[in-house]
Amino acid sequence: MNDNSPSFALQGSEALKTVFRNHASGITVVTSVTNDGEPIGFTASSVTSLGSNPPLVSLNIAQGSSSYKHLSPGAIVAIHTLDAGTLWLAEKMAADKEQRFTDVEFSIGPNSVPVFHQVPAVLVAKVRSRTEIEANAMIVLDALSAESFRSATEPLVYFQRGYHSLGMRLKDNS
Amino acid sequence: MNDNSPSFALQGSEALKTVFRNHASGITVVTSVTNDGEPIGFTASSVTSLGSNPPLVSLNIAQGSSSYKHLSPGAIVAIHTLDAGTLWLAEKMAADKEQRFTDVEFSIGPNSVPVFHQVPAVLVAKVRSRTEIEANAMIVLDALSAESFRSATEPLVYFQRGYHSLGMRLKDNS
Repeated sequence: MNDNSPSFALQGSEALKTVFRNHASGITVVTSVTNDGEPIGFTASSVTSLGSNPPLVSLNIAQGSSSYKHLSPGAIVAIHTLDAGTLWLAEKMAADKEQRFTDVEFSIGPNSVPVFHQVPAVLVAKVRSRTEIEANAMIVLDALSAESFRSATEPLVYFQRGYHSLGMRLKDNS
Repeated sequence: MNDNSPSFALQGSEALKTVFRNHASGITVVTSVTNDGEPIGFTASSVTSLGSNPPLVSLNIAQGSSSYKHLSPGAIVAIHTLDAGTLWLAEKMAADKEQRFTDVEFSIGPNSVPVFHQVPAVLVAKVRSRTEIEANAMIVLDALSAESFRSATEPLVYFQRGYHSLGMRLKDNS
């Protein structure tokens, strides 16, 4: 339309990566338990609200993830919000999966799901459905119950491949 | 398990709201065009990456949204990332829908989609499918192309019902 018209030269995967590097996201730790009673967990930046009546949550995950097979319909999970003080938990749950529940305190919540008390809040949810798309899947969960341990004044934010604190409040969404 | 075991007293919608108030999210503006050639747009905090090969994006939206009927499979949309300098655009695209494209500069991108140049980056994507769940829907889009206008050093973050800037970089995700 004018000399400044964008060329949209970035294509496909490169386009996606460039834009999402510029996009901030919240960070959670999701835990569950296998049929054999073993705790599992992983760090996720894709947990999103999907409506409040009934209360639903969505979560994107790669089918190749070691946790995927344990997240079938009916599975109970605990979704932990994180802040600057629990950055260590985000890192631990993204590192070696054999070490994720060693040297860390947790308790056993509803349906034997592991719960970390160190975080600001935990939501217990039940997998309702999952939709496989290419190599990934969208999981829908019903929110069941929650515990708020403390107010999160410093939520953890993921941006440009690193963990950040929150900055200034610029404006209320009136 | 001990005296500090959480009670998980918050239930259902209240549980969901309490936990998501404690969760940060990135903010985007999504635009498209109706069959009649009218621009539409809205502010969204649910845009999430759904894998890079092929490059896919997911977006949650209420079926009651005025934009919903225009986001059927095949529709082309532009997903704009935002920063502190484009907070005004997040607000404009969440306010009166008759005023969203008045008194603002935009150009016409691929397939007539409206594009705002003021933002850090724009991703053009095509709706692949949508899955209706209760009163909401999950939309899956194929990422097609992108333009990066400038580096976003201050992405806009939504938290506790308000817009925030980004804080300190705490750690690289090595």
